[in-house]
Amino acid sequence: MIILRTVPELRAFVNGWKRVGGRIGLVPTMGYLHEGHLSLVDRLGPRCDKIITSIFVNPKQFAPGEDLDRYPRDFDRDEKLLAGRGVDALFYPANEVMYPAGFLTYVDVEKLGENLCGRSRPNHFRGVTTVVSKLFLLTKCDAAAFGQKDYQQARIIQRMVEDLNFDIEIVICPIVREPDGLAMSSRNVYLTHEERKNALGLHRALEDVRILYNSGERAASLLIRQMQTTFQSIPNLKIDYLDILDAGSLQSIGVLTGRSVAVIAAFVGKTRLIDNVILEAKG
Amino acid sequence: MIILRTVPELRAFVNGWKRVGGRIGLVPTMGYLHEGHLSLVDRLGPRCDKIITSIFVNPKQFAPGEDLDRYPRDFDRDEKLLAGRGVDALFYPANEVMYPAGFLTYVDVEKLGENLCGRSRPNHFRGVTTVVSKLFLLTKCDAAAFGQKDYQQARIIQRMVEDLNFDIEIVICPIVREPDGLAMSSRNVYLTHEERKNALGLHRALEDVRILYNSGERAASLLIRQMQTTFQSIPNLKIDYLDILDAGSLQSIGVLTGRSVAVIAAFVGKTRLIDNVILEAKG
Repeated sequence: MIILRTVPELRAFVNGWKRVGGRIGLVPTMGYLHEGHLSLVDRLGPRCDKIITSIFVNPKQFAPGEDLDRYPRDFDRDEKLLAGRGVDALFYPANEVMYPAGFLTYVDVEKLGENLCGRSRPNHFRGVTTVVSKLFLLTKCDAAAFGQKDYQQARIIQRMVEDLNFDIEIVICPIVREPDGLAMSSRNVYLTHEERKNALGLHRALEDVRILYNSGERAASLLIRQMQTTFQSIPNLKIDYLDILDAGSLQSIGVLTGRSVAVIAAFVGKTRLIDNVILEAKG
Repeated sequence: MIILRTVPELRAFVNGWKRVGGRIGLVPTMGYLHEGHLSLVDRLGPRCDKIITSIFVNPKQFAPGEDLDRYPRDFDRDEKLLAGRGVDALFYPANEVMYPAGFLTYVDVEKLGENLCGRSRPNHFRGVTTVVSKLFLLTKCDAAAFGQKDYQQARIIQRMVEDLNFDIEIVICPIVREPDGLAMSSRNVYLTHEERKNALGLHRALEDVRILYNSGERAASLLIRQMQTTFQSIPNLKIDYLDILDAGSLQSIGVLTGRSVAVIAAFVGKTRLIDNVILEAKG
């Protein structure tokens, strides 16, 4: 696996692949990798000739006071994990490579980023869409994989790709969970032993709402109430948001008819975690 | 010359060229072509294997009350002109092709679009950068040409290309003028016989400031005063802006040291015209 740190290095590599007609897959990450990230690599592998993974803790998607400075990093471990998974190139740029002096351009997806994570993390999605656009253009990728755990992010990126006419296949991969159900996240490392147990409340609330949905319940208000009840039975969790929305538009719905998504974000101590489940009647 | 109206048509064509390693040049226009546009085609020709011209009167770069509805159009004439100049493909999309229902994504270059044309045309440059990004991604162009007449636009696009890592060579081409000096513009067709004469005031003001600059004057205030004096000697012109700025940052300067630009925008009757001249000491 080759490690590329600058734009000219990456360009030379990418253009070489492109010249021989290679199909490039991109897995953009912020590092501190877990099986969720690696499942994205595995998923793109068979669809692409070459896989690039990027590791870049993107300052533009963190608000002041968030965890940019303490976001966990372990480059050596990440490098080994990716090489072991057959990644061809690791793009690992410095901040000045991505945002040189004089940087002024942003990509914005309106509306879809206003609620949920966008409400408590102002400018977060603007940072995400800007850096993802840059990574798409730098890697000239034909496919890119994102995790369903960041459901709103995935929807926003799909919208951006369609609106700006990126010719890129966006692959959304299922949430990978710990054996007890906790959604994998680089931020799980922040949790104390006690918090780690309480963090399971997110998954439990989503499991309970899925059971109720599968039993035939379609009223959003009742389904949401079930999530709240489960959630409140677990100590030391603070809801950021908890909702059931149309899976496409991310807007509120009264009765679940098509594909919907139950979403949850909560603070476990100081750590903010998110999780979600798709609610869809089986054909 | 092939005419392409939809995204799948354009994609099939572009991907066919890309497979054989062709270098693609793009000349984006709003149609009603003049020698200024055609000079862009001529300039890209030797640098590219295939030339695509787009004709799209982009509604997102017009404010309410501007001339979107009456913007001049003559597709048959444009088609003949482009075919005669050796253009390979003409991309001519409908509004619904470029902005289908549910469109939400915008590209924004901060600061550079705030003054000059951005002040009197709110959201204009956001519309420009968004549509140009789309055209770049649709055509997968390796080079694109823009006219220096829209100087601020050219600078904003250069900034966007650098910031978002578009791997595209941006070629800025000199202003093409009528024999008497008026900068060519599709909007010149709006001018009455009398207005056409007065419109020369833009060019005269810029010529006078160039002469003063070449005589050694470097104080921005004196150069600007010269432009104003010339300009005010011509009847029925209303200044929108008139300034001398750093050619890179588009910020005001006191003394002209490096590359600068004298810019002017004025209403001639109801028609808004722009023009500019680069002020740079010869090596």
